Amino acid sequence: MNKVLSALTVLMAIAAVLAGFGYADEGMWTFDNPPRDQIRKTYGIELTDAWLDHLRKSSVRLGGIGSASFVSENGLILTNHHVAANCVQGLSSETEDFMKDGFGADKNVAPRRCPGMEAHVLMATEDVTARVLAAIPDGASDADSFAARKAETAKIEQECDDAGTDLCEVAAFYAGGEYWLHRYKRYDDVRLVLAPESQVASFGGDPDNFNYPRYCLDFALLRAYGADGKPVRPVDWLTVKPGAYKEGDPMFVAGHPTSSSRFTTYAQLEFERDHLYPFWKRMMERERGALTTYAATGEEAERRALLQIQYLDNFIKVADGYLRGLNDRTLMARKKAEEDRFRQDIAADPSLAARVGGAFEGVARAQKIHEEFFDRYRLILLRGSRLFRIAGHIVRVAAEKEKPNEERLEEFRDSALEGFLHSLYSPSPIYADMEEVLLRDRLQLLAEELGDDDPATKAALGGRAAEDVARETAAGSTLYDPDARKALVEGGVAAVAASADPMIRLARALDPMYRELRARYEEEIEEVEQKAGERIASARFKLYGRDTYPDTTFTLRLSFGRVAGYVEDGYRIPYQTTLFGLFDRGYSFEEQPPYDLPPRWKAKRNKMDLGAAINSGQYGGYVSRKFRKPGRQRPGRTYRNALRRQPSVPRNSVRV
Amino acid sequence: MNKVLSALTVLMAIAAVLAGFGYADEGMWTFDNPPRDQIRKTYGIELTDAWLDHLRKSSVRLGGIGSASFVSENGLILTNHHVAANCVQGLSSETEDFMKDGFGADKNVAPRRCPGMEAHVLMATEDVTARVLAAIPDGASDADSFAARKAETAKIEQECDDAGTDLCEVAAFYAGGEYWLHRYKRYDDVRLVLAPESQVASFGGDPDNFNYPRYCLDFALLRAYGADGKPVRPVDWLTVKPGAYKEGDPMFVAGHPTSSSRFTTYAQLEFERDHLYPFWKRMMERERGALTTYAATGEEAERRALLQIQYLDNFIKVADGYLRGLNDRTLMARKKAEEDRFRQDIAADPSLAARVGGAFEGVARAQKIHEEFFDRYRLILLRGSRLFRIAGHIVRVAAEKEKPNEERLEEFRDSALEGFLHSLYSPSPIYADMEEVLLRDRLQLLAEELGDDDPATKAALGGRAAEDVARETAAGSTLYDPDARKALVEGGVAAVAASADPMIRLARALDPMYRELRARYEEEIEEVEQKAGERIASARFKLYGRDTYPDTTFTLRLSFGRVAGYVEDGYRIPYQTTLFGLFDRGYSFEEQPPYDLPPRWKAKRNKMDLGAAINSGQYGGYVSRKFRKPGRQRPGRTYRNALRRQPSVPRNSVRV
Repeated sequence: MNKVLSALTVLMAIAAVLAGFGYADEGMWTFDNPPRDQIRKTYGIELTDAWLDHLRKSSVRLGGIGSASFVSENGLILTNHHVAANCVQGLSSETEDFMKDGFGADKNVAPRRCPGMEAHVLMATEDVTARVLAAIPDGASDADSFAARKAETAKIEQECDDAGTDLCEVAAFYAGGEYWLHRYKRYDDVRLVLAPESQVASFGGDPDNFNYPRYCLDFALLRAYGADGKPVRPVDWLTVKPGAYKEGDPMFVAGHPTSSSRFTTYAQLEFERDHLYPFWKRMMERERGALTTYAATGEEAERRALLQIQYLDNFIKVADGYLRGLNDRTLMARKKAEEDRFRQDIAADPSLAARVGGAFEGVARAQKIHEEFFDRYRLILLRGSRLFRIAGHIVRVAAEKEKPNEERLEEFRDSALEGFLHSLYSPSPIYADMEEVLLRDRLQLLAEELGDDDPATKAALGGRAAEDVARETAAGSTLYDPDARKALVEGGVAAVAASADPMIRLARALDPMYRELRARYEEEIEEVEQKAGERIASARFKLYGRDTYPDTTFTLRLSFGRVAGYVEDGYRIPYQTTLFGLFDRGYSFEEQPPYDLPPRWKAKRNKMDLGAAINSGQYGGYVSRKFRKPGRQRPGRTYRNALRRQPSVPRNSVRV
Repeated sequence: MNKVLSALTVLMAIAAVLAGFGYADEGMWTFDNPPRDQIRKTYGIELTDAWLDHLRKSSVRLGGIGSASFVSENGLILTNHHVAANCVQGLSSETEDFMKDGFGADKNVAPRRCPGMEAHVLMATEDVTARVLAAIPDGASDADSFAARKAETAKIEQECDDAGTDLCEVAAFYAGGEYWLHRYKRYDDVRLVLAPESQVASFGGDPDNFNYPRYCLDFALLRAYGADGKPVRPVDWLTVKPGAYKEGDPMFVAGHPTSSSRFTTYAQLEFERDHLYPFWKRMMERERGALTTYAATGEEAERRALLQIQYLDNFIKVADGYLRGLNDRTLMARKKAEEDRFRQDIAADPSLAARVGGAFEGVARAQKIHEEFFDRYRLILLRGSRLFRIAGHIVRVAAEKEKPNEERLEEFRDSALEGFLHSLYSPSPIYADMEEVLLRDRLQLLAEELGDDDPATKAALGGRAAEDVARETAAGSTLYDPDARKALVEGGVAAVAASADPMIRLARALDPMYRELRARYEEEIEEVEQKAGERIASARFKLYGRDTYPDTTFTLRLSFGRVAGYVEDGYRIPYQTTLFGLFDRGYSFEEQPPYDLPPRWKAKRNKMDLGAAINSGQYGGYVSRKFRKPGRQRPGRTYRNALRRQPSVPRNSVRV
């Protein structure tokens, strides 16, 4: 058991992460309900409460970003480099590029505080389903039930907050079939201790992303600090044991997968296929184009844009994969047939049929409504520009703070506010020239897609050229300085209304439309899907049993499998890769990017243990082995598998 | 041009072979007729006669084994380790295991003569089709035409021999549509200079065989010596230029691919599918089983059996691949449809129809006849036992030498005799205990398959148990000593008849049946296929043009392509691999055989240039890129491709 639990990360001055590579048998289980019988039968392992508690309290959620683990009694946190990348980039500048050169704290170099980063540890969960559902009056309209549900979850979170818990969140499970309160311990001083060069952390770049065998060293070390400025003593932590895993060993993975949607109806899949993913893909490709052009203007521009381009590469690949799956007619036909049978089974049970009512039809209607304003709702966010997002937050938080807690937009509740502001005041640098590029692109897009006469276009541009507005707004804003943001938030509605900051002005101009569309979305789409989801989920449980786990919602989950290689098309793929392979792949491709190697690595390679196991702990390789016959992962498969087996997608999981 | 020609092999004390990895565009062209236009158009390269001569005269055929190149003015020959393995194994003993430990000549260690090995260089070719065909009387019976054809080719070879050429061979091209005389220079003193450990030469063993990316260092260096005991000065040689190849470069490959059969009729494919390959597979699997059991009895037994087990692994994989292709109904249906159309096109042309006559029907009938004695003919060879094969050769060469040259079995013609005897008298060690194992297995099989009352079984066993006969025969034979073989050959028919050697006795007992079945095979199968082949081939040329190349027959061919990596299932495969990858794969599999690394390599790895490119110059990876969209090679594909694209299969090609 200890072997299973022992972590698997090699840490050295020039370091290597071994992340055991396994097939998870099935599932992303919540810690209150792991399939103990199945695990006992398959592995002969008894999951004790003490073990689960230990693992849970050692698991870390990093702000809104990803997963990690405490790995020492003095607050050391192990995570992926791509999870820590926002911090590494945020600490970098024209003169100190930690993405390029890596970072290592030692006697002479102190750890550096990650701008805006928090670490959360899940201390307890509580089923609050009955309480949430009881708060919704029978026969309430969608708008009323939305308000009632919102008010009740806000109340639950507030009570929890008042009782002294750092962070309280109510998460909906089973598409609204259950509600669980999550109580977190929160650390808001997280510092960077060690990060390798991004060249090795994301070695192989976009081509190798989601693929295996992979040879990237995708890890970083952080440390959490207390209010006293000293390293925290975490409640629990995992011990790193290099080489502890061998082929065939059972492996358990704890992490915070973002979101999955196994209870999606066919109508929702069609919406995703025809609107959602095509739209996002188009947006992201356009943004990548703008940033690539910008990055080509110079070394510093390249440095500034690098991380965001990497993210876009990643998400475009994901969208491509989703679309491939959604456009697979065989899979979609099967999905349709499954739903048809499910609905027939419901119809065959009168009381069930009465309870489910027109849930499927309601969801289908909601998709049609969503089509009407989906693009517009997303376009006015001007997504891509960080400063515009900040300005929008400032405009809204000022207004929301004045409302009763239960009536606020969710993210501005008192229980969430501390973390929200911590992130809003992050000193992570934002660059005016890059902001201008992104803002120009989004403003042009707004005009192109909605037309010059649209109220949103008029509000944003006021009849002027997008490039002029973007230039002046990006250049004239004071929000690059976190203190300026703070002054506005603390000045409240009056300060925001009086502000001459061009970015605030732009946010103010678009805010009414944003609020209107968000309200439509929440009442006419989200609430409809939520209420229908509750009924569909309970019908599913009644008909087919509840021997399953809820969709993922960036809450802590447990997965498991065996560490194993596999044979693909007659070729043996090992369960692990080594640093030798990193160099092999680099030199095999003659170091053409993204297969170039950092000079330091080449110079010191004979001083490293090149036989040390490394492994891409990335979601691609992980998912593939998780839900299907083993095979090299292509992004397309992820969604195809999702359709086929209803898995959820674990992102940024950290192995334990 | 020089870049193209420059060879690609890195040679160091601990050495690495770079064999550029390419897609050959198409074909295994003879040197008299390369597709100059296509090459000019595709690569902008003009193939000059001088260049072709240079390449041809630098190319080496190693006895009946494989391909190689002269790579120095003083007779150094570069080849694959698996081609030189017979030599390496033949020089090894219980106390000196060069397969395991490698071999390197230096100031203190002299090169060692490879037992029985010869090197041939093709000096000239000549079209003798008219002469051969003219020798066959119109309307001759199959037996008569066989005799006439044989006599004429024997005469041509003899005349060539008499004119002072070292080695003269007439090869049939286009299934008998053309005959070409090949004149070779012959070197019969070939010595081992350098061979790495077989652990790295065939790293990855059977699982990685035919696959890419591969990380084996499959090379060896030999040197040819003259009658004066001094290194020969070859007519021409290639210059080794490490790293000369980069991705995208054009590449030319000269080599001696064994045999292909693109002009095979559908009836022949059916025979291969239903009889030939299933039989060979069964035989080889059984032999491998017997040898594996033997090898498990001790280290020395393991050493003795290793190479033969490797060969069997290889051939079983090939047979599996062939069978997979032949059992692919889609492919076979296409093959059938192609032949049907071809036959319709013939039928539409009365003069052509008359010339082709019943060629297809004749070939089909021959297959039925072949079925009658195929198993029997192969079973009485007791294949597997090297000493029995030697005994059979002795019995026959003694008898054949007394016949006129034109009437002899082909391999005993004067023009071939020198090489034949050189091989027969090879001092390569043969082990009595292993012989007993193999002989017992074959004798048991003979009895099982033909029954105890069959004349062959009776002749071989004389009513005794197979294990007794095998034990006594293997233990009692004197033929382990090459001098004993020589004495019998020189003693002629009388000496053979008088010999009490049990192996000679066994060979004598089975020889009449062998001769009878061989004659049936040559007259009723081979000659029928040959004559039909001529007619079918000429019809094909007339209908579809002759813009093609003949099937391979272990004669020198030229192939070409570009050095290139490829993308497989979304994963980038580089055009080359490096020594880093060898270590990566070893440690990734925790050195579980066949991924174990020689101790010397591990100890000295920091002294090696691990970034040096290596590459499996093996047929699997090569063919796959040659005839189909790039992809990881499985043996099954080879034959499927053969069916699909009518390629020939280059074996043991050496890159130039």
